Order: sequence, then C-alpha cells, then structure tokens
Amino acid sequence: MNVTIWNEYYEELVYLSVSVHYPDGIHTVLAEALQEDDSAGLEVRIALQQDPEHGLPQSVLDDTDVLLWWSHLKDDEVDDEIVERVARRVEEGMGLLILHSAIGSKVARRVLGTTCRGTGWRHGDAELMWAVAPSHPITHGLPHPIAVPEGEMYGEPLDIPVPDELVYLTSYAGGEVLRSVATWRRGAGRVVFIAPGHEESPVYRQPEIRRLLRNATRWAADLPVPGAPVPPPRREGEWPMHWWKGGVTA
Amino acid sequence: MNVTIWNEYYEELVYLSVSVHYPDGIHTVLAEALQEDDSAGLEVRIALQQDPEHGLPQSVLDDTDVLLWWSHLKDDEVDDEIVERVARRVEEGMGLLILHSAIGSKVARRVLGTTCRGTGWRHGDAELMWAVAPSHPITHGLPHPIAVPEGEMYGEPLDIPVPDELVYLTSYAGGEVLRSVATWRRGAGRVVFIAPGHEESPVYRQPEIRRLLRNATRWAADLPVPGAPVPPPRREGEWPMHWWKGGVTA
Amino acid sequence: MNVTIWNEYYEELVYLSVSVHYPDGIHTVLAEALQEDDSAGLEVRIALQQDPEHGLPQSVLDDTDVLLWWSHLKDDEVDDEIVERVARRVEEGMGLLILHSAIGSKVARRVLGTTCRGTGWRHGDAELMWAVAPSHPITHGLPHPIAVPEGEMYGEPLDIPVPDELVYLTSYAGGEVLRSVATWRRGAGRVVFIAPGHEESPVYRQPEIRRLLRNATRWAADLPVPGAPVPPPRREGEWPMHWWKGGVTA
Amino acid sequence: MNVTIWNEYYEELVYLSVSVHYPDGIHTVLAEALQEDDSAGLEVRIALQQDPEHGLPQSVLDDTDVLLWWSHLKDDEVDDEIVERVARRVEEGMGLLILHSAIGSKVARRVLGTTCRGTGWRHGDAELMWAVAPSHPITHGLPHPIAVPEGEMYGEPLDIPVPDELVYLTSYAGGEVLRSVATWRRGAGRVVFIAPGHEESPVYRQPEIRRLLRNATRWAADLPVPGAPVPPPRREGEWPMHWWKGGVTA
Repeated sequence: MNVTIWNEYYEELVYLSVSVHYPDGIHTVLAEALQEDDSAGLEVRIALQQDPEHGLPQSVLDDTDVLLWWSHLKDDEVDDEIVERVARRVEEGMGLLILHSAIGSKVARRVLGTTCRGTGWRHGDAELMWAVAPSHPITHGLPHPIAVPEGEMYGEPLDIPVPDELVYLTSYAGGEVLRSVATWRRGAGRVVFIAPGHEESPVYRQPEIRRLLRNATRWAADLPVPGAPVPPPRREGEWPMHWWKGGVTA
Repeated sequence: MNVTIWNEYYEELVYLSVSVHYPDGIHTVLAEALQEDDSAGLEVRIALQQDPEHGLPQSVLDDTDVLLWWSHLKDDEVDDEIVERVARRVEEGMGLLILHSAIGSKVARRVLGTTCRGTGWRHGDAELMWAVAPSHPITHGLPHPIAVPEGEMYGEPLDIPVPDELVYLTSYAGGEVLRSVATWRRGAGRVVFIAPGHEESPVYRQPEIRRLLRNATRWAADLPVPGAPVPPPRREGEWPMHWWKGGVTA
Repeated sequence: MNVTIWNEYYEELVYLSVSVHYPDGIHTVLAEALQEDDSAGLEVRIALQQDPEHGLPQSVLDDTDVLLWWSHLKDDEVDDEIVERVARRVEEGMGLLILHSAIGSKVARRVLGTTCRGTGWRHGDAELMWAVAPSHPITHGLPHPIAVPEGEMYGEPLDIPVPDELVYLTSYAGGEVLRSVATWRRGAGRVVFIAPGHEESPVYRQPEIRRLLRNATRWAADLPVPGAPVPPPRREGEWPMHWWKGGVTA
Repeated sequence: MNVTIWNEYYEELVYLSVSVHYPDGIHTVLAEALQEDDSAGLEVRIALQQDPEHGLPQSVLDDTDVLLWWSHLKDDEVDDEIVERVARRVEEGMGLLILHSAIGSKVARRVLGTTCRGTGWRHGDAELMWAVAPSHPITHGLPHPIAVPEGEMYGEPLDIPVPDELVYLTSYAGGEVLRSVATWRRGAGRVVFIAPGHEESPVYRQPEIRRLLRNATRWAADLPVPGAPVPPPRREGEWPMHWWKGGVTA
C-alpha cells in the first residue's frame, strides 16, 4: 500500500507554539505514526505545498492508495487544478483522510460539496471521543472513550454532508460536541474526516490517535483492521465517573 | 390531530423525588406542554399502564395520529399484545415519540429492532443539546444550544439503529455525549427518540423542551412546524464561551 | 413562495425533436406545471442562460425560495461565479431541484461533490417509478408506480453521494434501474434530484410528473404537501401484472 | 471462520419443483457455494428447523461467526426463544445473511423491526442486479449487471428500515424494482439481505450468485473480500443494449 502525506508545512516554520511539538513538520510525525506497527508493505511518501505541483503530480497520485491531508492557514494558495486532480483520484478509488483544520480546505469542500464551516473554535480544550458505531473497523483496538488532554474545539453545527457512517462523537471540556470521525464514499474512493490534530498540541504523538490514524488509513484502502471492536453497550448499573471533574484519566 | 400520551405512571405515585415535580403525573405536564400554543385542533388523550388494555384498545390507536410514550421501571409488565398493536399502528402511519427512559422499553425495542441499551447512566448532570441537522423542522424556534440544568446522562454507544436523521447531540457535564434526538421511518410512520425527560427533574416544565416536544409531535404527524431554523454555521472568530465552567446560562 | 426556473434554453431553439414538445421552452411548461393548482401565493420567475448573469443576479437568488435547474448541452458555458452563487444560496436555505440531465451540470457537481456521471444512456425507453420511501411527502397524491411512456434511460452506477433520502427508483424498458428521486441537505437548503424530463418527449406535460414537481417544490421549501401517501406494502397474493409486456397502462 | 447455514428444509421434501433443483436441500448447495474457493479455514455447519432447538443451541450460536438463514413457508413454527437467541447473537457481533423469502421471517422482522412486507410477488422473472455502491466489498469480482435468468419478483415498497448501505438494485422482466442487497448494523453485528434465491430455480447454482454469497459472508465477518470493484461510471456514449429485448446475455 502506498500512502502519501500532504502537509502545508507553514506553521511549523514560523510559530514556536507549533514547532515545539513538530520540529520536523507534522508530516514527519504522521509518517512515524503510520509506520510504527502493521507497517509491512506500507510505503509512505511526503508531499508539501511548497513542492512543485504541491508535490502531487499526476504520477504520484496515480500511485497513491491513501492520501492524508493536513492544511490550515495557506489553503487559499492551493492551486485549483491540484484540488481537481485530487478529487478525481478519490473518484477513481484513492482513499482520503481529511485531518483536523483541513476540513475547511478547498480539497474537503470540493469533495464533500458543502462549506465545511463549523460554529466557533477554541484552543486548549480536553477532548473525549466516544464511538457510536462500535463495530466499525476504525474503532478496533482503541480504548473507550479516547481522551485527548489538550486539543482544539470545533463546534456544531458543522456544515458537512450527512455522513455515510458516523463513527465517533467528541465532547469538549467547554461542553461542545462534534461529529469527529465520519466517512463518505465518493465514487470508488473512501473519505474520512478525523477531527483531532490541533497543531499547538502534540496530538499526533499520542498512541491512541496514532492507532486511529492507522486504522482509518487501512480502512480507506479497504484493508482489514486488526484488533477488537469497542465492547457492546451495557447498562448494568449507575456510572459514577465524571470524566471532566475527575480528569480524563478515568 | 389526535395525540395520545402514554405513561406508566408509577414513580410519581411512590417516589417523593418524582412527585415533587409531577404531582399529577408526567402525562399531565406533557399534555400541558403540547397544548400551550399552536394547539388549535389538537386533541390530547391520556392512556395509562394501569388502564384496561393499558388504555390502548385498538379503537384508540386507530384514532391516534401521534403517540408519546414514557416508561421506565414497569416496562416488563407491559402486555406483548399491546406492544404489537402499537408497532402495527406505527407501520400504518401513526407517529411515535419515544421519551427518555422509554428508549429501553419493549415498544422501542420492537419498533427499532435493537437492544436499545446504552453505556452507563448518572443522575443530575447538566445537559447541552446541539443541532447537527440545523434545517430540520424539529429545531425550529429553539435556542442553540438548548441547556437543561439538570437531567440524566445516558452514554454512548447506545445500541440503536443508525438514525435516518440525526437531529441533536447532547453533551453532559460529566463529559459524555448522546445522539439525543433521532428519527426513523417505520412503514408509513415516523418515530422520534427524544432523550431529555428525567423524572427527578422538572425537565418537561422547561419551555425549550416543551417546544421541542411540540415540534416533534407536529413533525411526526407530517405537519409544518412554525418558527425559524437554527442559524447556519459561522466560523468568524474564536469562541470564548466555556459552557460548563461559566454555567449553562451562557 | 418565490420559485425561479432556470433553463439553458438551447435545444428548443435548434432541434425540431425538442421544439415540437416545448415550442416556448421547457421553462414555460415547467412554470405551467407549478402553477396549475395549489398555486395561491406562488410566484414563478424565469431565468435563462442567455440573460445577463444567466438571469441570476444576487438579488434574484436572495429572493428565491426554490430554484429549478434544467440544463444539458451548454453547461460548460455556465459561469463558475454563478455556480458558486447558487451553491452559497443553497447553503443559506434555498431549495434546489436538479432536473434530468442537469444532474451532470456544474451546479449539481458543485453542490453534491461527485462527478454525477452515470453508466450509459438511451433515448426512448418507457419508465416506471416505484416509491421506496412511501410516506415521504414527495409521493403524496401520486399513483404507484408512475408510468412514463417514453423518456431517457440513465444507468447505475450513477456517481452521486449516498442520498439522505431515497424516494423513488425507476426501471426502464431496457432493464436498467436508477435512483430517480433522491434528496440531500446542504447547509440549510434542501436539494432534490428528479430524473424524468427528457427533452425529446413531452414528459413535463404529463400530469403525474407535474404533480411530482409541485410536491418536490413544496417539500424543498419545507411546506406541507397535500394528498395521501402511497399505500403501505401488502403481500396478500401473487401479482400477475407484467408492466412491460402488458404495456404501462396496467 | 465458522459459518452456520440454517434452512427450514421443507419444500425440498414435498415439492418436485424444488427438489429437482435441490435434491439434498438448499443448505447443501449453499454449503458448496461457500466452500468452492477462498475456503481456507472456513468451517461450515448445517442447522435445520427439524433439529432439536432448530439446530441452534446457544453453544452453536456462540461458535458461529456468520449465520445464513433461508426460510419460507414454515416460519410460523419457528420458536420465539430461538429467534431471540439469534437476535442477541447478532447484537454481540455475529453476522447474519437473510436469504430471499427469509426477509419475511420472524428472525428478519425481529432484527430489522419492520413488517418486511413487500408489494406483490411473481415467479419466473428474469432479474438484473445493478450495483449502486460500486466500491462496496460485496461487489468485488462480480460482473455488472448480474443477470439471473429466472427467479422471483418481490415488489417495492418493501417495508424494511432504510438500509445503512444499499448495495444492489434489481429490475425484473415485468418492470418492477427491488433494493436487493442491503446492509444494516445491529449492535456489533452486520446484517445483509440478499434477495435472489427462489427455490423453484437453480439460483444458488449460478456462479455469480455463489460469489455474491461468499463476498457477503466474508464482509459480514469483517474479513477482506478479494477481487476488483465494479468499474466506475462512464457516460462516454449512448448505450444501445436492451437487456430484456436482447435477452440477459448482453
């Protein structure tokens, strides 16, 4: 399987708050995350916005099974022709993972057809991710809920199409919620939005999020995802835990 | 339009923590909620578990456009034949509102086909309800988010079928989330699950929840719902509010 | 309610096979169809591709509740800025009906996010439309199935997003099938694809299709649709009718 | 992987029109179909209605990864307790394939929550199956469309819940249509309805249908399905084939 990681690679170069977590770029940590296990036969390639054709000549896309896309502040400078190229490859069968702020990118809006605008944002919140499709392969091997100590809130309504599959919901320490892992089919391709990934926190260094990324990458390539699903619901008694008040270590 | 409100009417009789909020039964307050405006032509009938045939002879159901169902502790004593009768009327076109703990009832399980088990519960949490289908008629005229000062947490995964329409998500003060307003078509009938409604809090006395019940009742009868939808998403700036920390009055 | 009918208005001017059915343009017959009953308070405006700004200055769109869009051969000449303008108004809440070949238009592709390509086409087939969401308002008052004596086949797979609601399936005399009435929410707006409408047949002069258009227009504006739903399924006996072999009059 | 094939095994014993095709029972041919390739590690067990506990003691179900269910005339005699047992195992994660007339069985109605009634039926029609989710694993390696020379028509509306995934549509020679392969999640289990399988025709001896059954069995067990997906849509020219008029050999 050939995976291409695309990064706008800007904030890591100019903001200390970002480079402290990702001194070699978010893409480098994403590449590590994909390769740390189950990696037999997985080839990872990096493409950066600054590269010619943003690193995505047709030949690279033709040879890509799954594309991860991280972007934020420089999205307006992405060439429309490359956006079309990506969208066409998704239609042909390439998987696409839309990471965090890339939900607002031209690529996401082109593929999903909506504005992808959310309702407010705020840095620094703790996040809890709860599976609502507990047998979905993307959840395999993950604790429940997944706790992210510090990330970024995006609020609902988020203007995305109704997901084909809604996999995770997130609650934020401030009380907001988000459909945080969602999937759509576009032509022969699978698209996954994965909300966690704020650049001022080391979210992609967290083992659970790395596992989530590996699961989603494999699922987007229609490969089996090892590991057990989230246990089924049980209502046998009162649940005393207060996730926020007691901290997210539960 | 003819509405029938069904109530097991047990806890109001034996627990002070319930009767203090609903001295004449939850059904009485639900009836008030439905009739307080837009009520021209709305006929409300009460059916209690203690009544012959649980208050639901075939003639009553045949004459019911929308049935509201509140149940909790005595569900095992509901007659299977009445459950079948309700399910058949839904198939024929009767609307059904499944209220709070009734998600675990025989009626809900029969109509939805799943166990309807959730993952834990806890009394006393504040709740925030966020619209994810902001143009859905059920949201008309409601503030965003809807804040419930004190209710009961039900956790995900909740074992319900994938909703045809997911309308609201709830976050609880403890950090959990729930798909809290969801709809399904069953035959010619419309089914709505509405999560708020814990019996030890005066949830059904709250104007926003009463409006939500009226909206859902009208929608389940395929009647237009007056009022404006939730405003569309906007991302114009950072969102400083901390709903929990600052309280739910926002 | 203000409805705007958009037409590329080209084939009616140059092909006898089209002008014979629509001598004053498809838009004129669509306007008649919308106004022939239930028309109290319905204002219909025409916008043509040849008009300045394609007849769709921002002021017209701002004043449009539902936009019907018919296009085919000249779609490449539609201005991208107007396409964006339409898409944004849908997001804000305007309804959009995508008619027949307009499924391949820039507007449809922009709003839906996919190529909207189908698998083959053929003129002249008889069509039968079968409701699969029998309680949906778009089906109200319509016979079942709806028979179109002569239209145009579009084959599956048709590359559209999974519909939020699938309302009708069509079978063609040649044996193909199509998801022929489907809906999506986009922001606060409702989008409906309606497959029948081939320009070389008088499809929009047929009473059932005119009723279907009126129903969909009202539904896209979130207005109630009068009339009874499709009767519920019944399996009481063998069904001897052969729709094709016996002709579509059944 | 352990697969259990359940059969009511009645018509094969009493009707010549059935026994001529399935002299050793439909279950025997289904078992052959599952094992003819990709069968490494696949264990198939048979359970018949006539067996004690219908062949489904808890221990057998606990050891079953995917259950195929074929039933028709004797469904009323299936023990309600066994139906509950099956439904609970699906919730826990067992896959379930509902075959042909079993869509009307107690098991299907219990798991899906609807009447599962269709609109008419007729023996002897040719069928064409068209993929509408062309990248779905269940379609892998199959021709498009799949032609079944002689089967049984079931008409829409069919009273099933809105599928989580709609994979195939069928058209019948008589002009009707059916959502013929559809999936739902129920708890941790995957449910698939597969319409072809009329007992008076050798449908389960047809290679394409056998492949379809193997694909669905693997998918229901969350195993990868080998083979290429249906080619993407293409609209490059007119499509002259008339599937029915020219016969289904295309």
